[in-house]
Amino acid sequence: MQKLIEKANILAEALHYIHKLAGKTVVVKYGGNAMQSEEITKTILEDLALLKIVGVNPVLIHGGGPEINALLKSLNIQPVFHNGLRVTDKDTMNVVQMVLCGKLNKDITSKLNNLGVKAIGICGKDARLIEVRKKSSDVDLGFVGEIMRINTRLIEHLANDEYIPVIASVGCDEEGNSYNINADTAAAEIACAMKAEKLIFLTDIDGIRMNKDDPTTLIPIITIAEVDKLISQGIISEGMIPKVIACVKGVKMGIKRTHIINGTIPHPIMLEIFTDTGIGTMITE
Amino acid sequence: MQKLIEKANILAEALHYIHKLAGKTVVVKYGGNAMQSEEITKTILEDLALLKIVGVNPVLIHGGGPEINALLKSLNIQPVFHNGLRVTDKDTMNVVQMVLCGKLNKDITSKLNNLGVKAIGICGKDARLIEVRKKSSDVDLGFVGEIMRINTRLIEHLANDEYIPVIASVGCDEEGNSYNINADTAAAEIACAMKAEKLIFLTDIDGIRMNKDDPTTLIPIITIAEVDKLISQGIISEGMIPKVIACVKGVKMGIKRTHIINGTIPHPIMLEIFTDTGIGTMITE
Amino acid sequence: MQKLIEKANILAEALHYIHKLAGKTVVVKYGGNAMQSEEITKTILEDLALLKIVGVNPVLIHGGGPEINALLKSLNIQPVFHNGLRVTDKDTMNVVQMVLCGKLNKDITSKLNNLGVKAIGICGKDARLIEVRKKSSDVDLGFVGEIMRINTRLIEHLANDEYIPVIASVGCDEEGNSYNINADTAAAEIACAMKAEKLIFLTDIDGIRMNKDDPTTLIPIITIAEVDKLISQGIISEGMIPKVIACVKGVKMGIKRTHIINGTIPHPIMLEIFTDTGIGTMITE
Amino acid sequence: MQKLIEKANILAEALHYIHKLAGKTVVVKYGGNAMQSEEITKTILEDLALLKIVGVNPVLIHGGGPEINALLKSLNIQPVFHNGLRVTDKDTMNVVQMVLCGKLNKDITSKLNNLGVKAIGICGKDARLIEVRKKSSDVDLGFVGEIMRINTRLIEHLANDEYIPVIASVGCDEEGNSYNINADTAAAEIACAMKAEKLIFLTDIDGIRMNKDDPTTLIPIITIAEVDKLISQGIISEGMIPKVIACVKGVKMGIKRTHIINGTIPHPIMLEIFTDTGIGTMITE
Amino acid sequence: MQKLIEKANILAEALHYIHKLAGKTVVVKYGGNAMQSEEITKTILEDLALLKIVGVNPVLIHGGGPEINALLKSLNIQPVFHNGLRVTDKDTMNVVQMVLCGKLNKDITSKLNNLGVKAIGICGKDARLIEVRKKSSDVDLGFVGEIMRINTRLIEHLANDEYIPVIASVGCDEEGNSYNINADTAAAEIACAMKAEKLIFLTDIDGIRMNKDDPTTLIPIITIAEVDKLISQGIISEGMIPKVIACVKGVKMGIKRTHIINGTIPHPIMLEIFTDTGIGTMITE
Amino acid sequence: MQKLIEKANILAEALHYIHKLAGKTVVVKYGGNAMQSEEITKTILEDLALLKIVGVNPVLIHGGGPEINALLKSLNIQPVFHNGLRVTDKDTMNVVQMVLCGKLNKDITSKLNNLGVKAIGICGKDARLIEVRKKSSDVDLGFVGEIMRINTRLIEHLANDEYIPVIASVGCDEEGNSYNINADTAAAEIACAMKAEKLIFLTDIDGIRMNKDDPTTLIPIITIAEVDKLISQGIISEGMIPKVIACVKGVKMGIKRTHIINGTIPHPIMLEIFTDTGIGTMITE
Repeated sequence: MQKLIEKANILAEALHYIHKLAGKTVVVKYGGNAMQSEEITKTILEDLALLKIVGVNPVLIHGGGPEINALLKSLNIQPVFHNGLRVTDKDTMNVVQMVLCGKLNKDITSKLNNLGVKAIGICGKDARLIEVRKKSSDVDLGFVGEIMRINTRLIEHLANDEYIPVIASVGCDEEGNSYNINADTAAAEIACAMKAEKLIFLTDIDGIRMNKDDPTTLIPIITIAEVDKLISQGIISEGMIPKVIACVKGVKMGIKRTHIINGTIPHPIMLEIFTDTGIGTMITE
Repeated sequence: MQKLIEKANILAEALHYIHKLAGKTVVVKYGGNAMQSEEITKTILEDLALLKIVGVNPVLIHGGGPEINALLKSLNIQPVFHNGLRVTDKDTMNVVQMVLCGKLNKDITSKLNNLGVKAIGICGKDARLIEVRKKSSDVDLGFVGEIMRINTRLIEHLANDEYIPVIASVGCDEEGNSYNINADTAAAEIACAMKAEKLIFLTDIDGIRMNKDDPTTLIPIITIAEVDKLISQGIISEGMIPKVIACVKGVKMGIKRTHIINGTIPHPIMLEIFTDTGIGTMITE
Repeated sequence: MQKLIEKANILAEALHYIHKLAGKTVVVKYGGNAMQSEEITKTILEDLALLKIVGVNPVLIHGGGPEINALLKSLNIQPVFHNGLRVTDKDTMNVVQMVLCGKLNKDITSKLNNLGVKAIGICGKDARLIEVRKKSSDVDLGFVGEIMRINTRLIEHLANDEYIPVIASVGCDEEGNSYNINADTAAAEIACAMKAEKLIFLTDIDGIRMNKDDPTTLIPIITIAEVDKLISQGIISEGMIPKVIACVKGVKMGIKRTHIINGTIPHPIMLEIFTDTGIGTMITE
Repeated sequence: MQKLIEKANILAEALHYIHKLAGKTVVVKYGGNAMQSEEITKTILEDLALLKIVGVNPVLIHGGGPEINALLKSLNIQPVFHNGLRVTDKDTMNVVQMVLCGKLNKDITSKLNNLGVKAIGICGKDARLIEVRKKSSDVDLGFVGEIMRINTRLIEHLANDEYIPVIASVGCDEEGNSYNINADTAAAEIACAMKAEKLIFLTDIDGIRMNKDDPTTLIPIITIAEVDKLISQGIISEGMIPKVIACVKGVKMGIKRTHIINGTIPHPIMLEIFTDTGIGTMITE
Repeated sequence: MQKLIEKANILAEALHYIHKLAGKTVVVKYGGNAMQSEEITKTILEDLALLKIVGVNPVLIHGGGPEINALLKSLNIQPVFHNGLRVTDKDTMNVVQMVLCGKLNKDITSKLNNLGVKAIGICGKDARLIEVRKKSSDVDLGFVGEIMRINTRLIEHLANDEYIPVIASVGCDEEGNSYNINADTAAAEIACAMKAEKLIFLTDIDGIRMNKDDPTTLIPIITIAEVDKLISQGIISEGMIPKVIACVKGVKMGIKRTHIINGTIPHPIMLEIFTDTGIGTMITE
Repeated sequence: MQKLIEKANILAEALHYIHKLAGKTVVVKYGGNAMQSEEITKTILEDLALLKIVGVNPVLIHGGGPEINALLKSLNIQPVFHNGLRVTDKDTMNVVQMVLCGKLNKDITSKLNNLGVKAIGICGKDARLIEVRKKSSDVDLGFVGEIMRINTRLIEHLANDEYIPVIASVGCDEEGNSYNINADTAAAEIACAMKAEKLIFLTDIDGIRMNKDDPTTLIPIITIAEVDKLISQGIISEGMIPKVIACVKGVKMGIKRTHIINGTIPHPIMLEIFTDTGIGTMITE
């Protein structure tokens, strides 16, 4: 009986959040290190499918560094990085595009379709979704792009219809050339352009912790003002900074709630957005 | 962590059922003995409100025997019963109508409104919702009606819009006279006429048990064929028979699933329809 | 032949007014003393049905003093009045609600349904139609309410669809408690909130007369400025003042035309609004 | 007071018929001898305008024999008739078309516009409304047409929108040549093709009388079976036969009610269709 | 092969212009001297039909001086002109209306219908399309009107639906009287009121030439500023001035492009608007 | 002047075909050998863009054999063929998918976008567009699929909206695995499922010739009955047979017209479908 009451409470709690998100857009960035386990990936895609099923409109953005490196290696192309950015000549860009748009994007799409929803895999070149210009830099980075404009009509159309858009982080310039872009930034820009209700980064850590090594110090909610303080105090450190910056920028551009959560535990999206406590850090105004 | 996984599973399970019921009608009969506890009533009305919130369309039918008797007593009108049916003269019918349509119906409506949804209290006289004729019997039963026709347009309209219809079990004949009708039957007829997905009877017992006195012998799912057998074997006994008959009739008239559940535990509707195991007996084809 | 021409003129005249009122809302307050004759009541309900049939949207508000007093007497509850307002304790409020919402409201609704239209009986508790707060006074009046807000969506919805809303003058406070309210005021507030074209008070006198005892001195049209003068001159006297004040307030809040007419002659509404001369007094800006 | 009650009854009666005709099409044939008085014509056009205003969709068909003869005379063209049909050579057809489509049609249209409605004057050549073939005969009748097909889309469109179509009785053949057609027949064919509720012939007599010379013997309603009998008995005589035949044919093709009424008394249409007694003869199944 | 490439280029060029005009309104004035050849007229009506077919919405305005004079002559009415304007008494106006609205208008309509499109012939009296007032002048010009207002709703409705409106240049005053109006002016006013994309005058000359007698000096495009200069230099001479003025006025009132082209060569409209070079003079801002 | 008339005729001819194709679907298969010249490809994509612009809905299907072979070679994977079909192991399938979906598909899409239309690149895995099963064969062909079902909703949606779908010929089985499929067959199946008006194969030859080596013996139109005869007579030879078979099958499944045309001359699609003579062979019922 005690268990029944508990179950009833969990449901009552979730129904409340479902109601609040109905018809809203939730943009999820997934990729890189968080993408390693087949089993966890399945629960993440299940979360996206369930969101769609109960009337929320999810949009998935993904990158795919490790698989790009693997194909480059097979083709004997030496990866070159400058300040953490991949120097991208024509051949490298071809490989990036083939892996992201041709391999990962279509495979994620198929897996979602297998869960009973309808996904469609596109990239920034389709209907000129992500328009970029060449990133200026002290050295020539080649086809590395800086996002100039998001043309959301196509994805709004798909997301408001029965589809889940799955977007590979490749952009196009005015002449239609392909560009390598940062997937975190792309997710934030797309969420802003779509006036998304939420932007969620699935990473391999729990969120922001006061003490990096102590899981019990996780901060569940933080304002963008407080984030600045924590950065200046060095509490938000190296690897976390770019994601946190993207969140802060997102909030400043109008996204109501941005989340950094651990994508290595099962059903992370559902636990974060359908429970009172959540599992990661929500950054908000 | 174990608790998180469990929570995730409860949610995944519920989301599945929410998806299947989205946009569907669920008719709930509530009343009489099950209506005693203020506290439990509140969780039942919360369940109805939550159903509405996640996109299901609930319709509530209620009777109210005990309160009718109380007012009759205050007015020194002696209740007369014949074969379990209230012999209903003009004065008695006035009392029935005032209590059901004027008191209980409006008070339930107000309580639902307090939960953030919009309820509207009506009866079988509004837009001629429930058309009856005088029930034939060996003795004159007065204004006791037999349901002839349900005019669903008004409640379909309200239920598909943002409202929860709350329906008092009073009918009208061709000339507009008021009639006392059985609330269980009214619920079944309305559910059939609305092609409801579900019909739920909230009672004061758990459902059908193989051994009436042993809660562990509850039958979670039963077909209408099996019901017949259990009745002939005397396993489904006296008080349960009318409700079970109403369920069987409902299934035969096209309702997919009918439920008899215990309305004296908290959140009974949610537990029955959003969990795999449920808490009562589901009668189906 | 002369009679044919006269008939043709009456029709041409009426068609003109029908055209002007098509799709507009007309709020009618009916009750108390005007409600005595069954026969006249029938012609009034016929007028409402005919309005609906030719494309006008009538809304009926009713009170019901005499019937409330009768039930209070049966239950040995002593009516208490203070400055003309019924002091309303919990038990009295229950009686008020049962009589207005459970008896009169549903019976008027049935009679309209018998005329081939679809009426639906509701009160201020349904979908929180009439929100009130406790009326402040030198003595505790109990559940006597002062109207704070009209939530018109439900009745607009019903009135613009095929239904005639019949509204019992019972309000609800923030917590959903029932309150006794003045039906004239409720009619005026609802008419304002619905931006009604007309507000009609059916009373037991002809309208405003220059000489109270001389029917030939009836004033057919009067502006709100002139009303003030007549009140200060004592020409508009005691019983008439509250209705006239409600009309004036209604006009000030945006109702184009308000009417006080004699509800004891047959078809009063039709004669007032579909003929050039009318039968009562129209108060306008 | 007696007068008020009478007025109320006339209105109640009319409202009933308005309700029954709302959204329905009424085709009126007007022309020739009935068209003589400017004053009566004005009341007829007022009737059409009022029909439109209260939600009925009138369509007017007209001929114009006398005016055609006048112009032919001015141009020294000798009218030739054969079995009552105008032998129509090219020059005569030009005159017919100019008078019907260019003069009468546009002038009626203007007069209707002056009454506050929107009329539009067209003929059988517009959007190929009335398709004809050359009428076969023992002598060459020239451009005299037999109606083959009515293309109603344009007039349905106009009549269901805010316009009153005014149609001159000129047809076109496959090659677009103009043809002289009988206006009574055109009215009946158009009414059938539009599935009109009513077809009304405005003539210069009262309707069908048992005794041609005794106005008190007017037959208000007659079935098509009875019409046959009266024709064979010689009671329906010469001039009346074509109109009666057109009515009978109309009823057989599905028009519910056809009327022959006297267009020389004021407001004839309104009196016929908005009163219980009517003023002419209604031919029905 | 060379021919194929040329053909492909002509098509590519035309498709470009079709795309730009899709859903736009093109007003064409045709009449008088340009209307002489049956064969050329056929290609002009074909051009209008083809415009309609590919999704452009053409509207045709026509006058008809020569045919009016012919009928006046037959009726022995002496044409009187004052400063180039026809002095129009009642009889003359009747003739003008019969010829324009009854003869030419309906015949053009029939010819368009024969090309597989649906045309409908109307004039300024239908739905009060062209409202005028009597033109003031030093001598009484009779029914010569000055355009006051264009009520475009009817023609917008028809043109946006499947019809081609064919409009005879007859106006009506407040009382519904008919007026003779200048067809060039009417075309310009209608084009402005409809916010047409183009206004095309079909005349009997090529357009504006620098040297009137040298076809090679045709000016393909000219701004309204340059027009003024050419008029003051006398290069735009007598007969051309009214049309040029109408074009300039049209451009000033918001029509994007106005054209004066030679209606005596085949398919003039198509050549002007679907080819890069065009065949006449385009006047633009 | 002669040239003007010729131009007018070409346009009149094209407009006729544009009208007939408006709102219809045209499926184009392009690929392999026909895809060699950058310059010609540009005119083909221009044709597709122009079709879209004038209201026709083109859908493009492509394969890409030569580019697949190039990447396989770079990765030292040996292509294996069996009876003309590529034996496709997991690694080979990855390469096929990366080249078709990730490289060619997105690059064609970008080029179309540069022409001012909106293209979107997808494959048979998106929304399960092309469902296949493993092709049975005497040797294990690996991931070579046989088309079982086309789920057209997504592409119908896109094609009827403002987009041009560009489809890579990759299918998916029930479990979501990728399969290599024949692009000609895919084009025919998609055209059938979409009830396309036309199916066009762009090849490197002119169409069907009676004498393979004599371009003047090209057959412009042929019925499917005649095709059978020509095959049995050996006149339709080796390389041509599969395309002709796909055309015949398409016609049998309901496509009205199928075309085999030479994709190595400029603007081939426009010349085939917007001119009377066309440039290739049309196979029809």
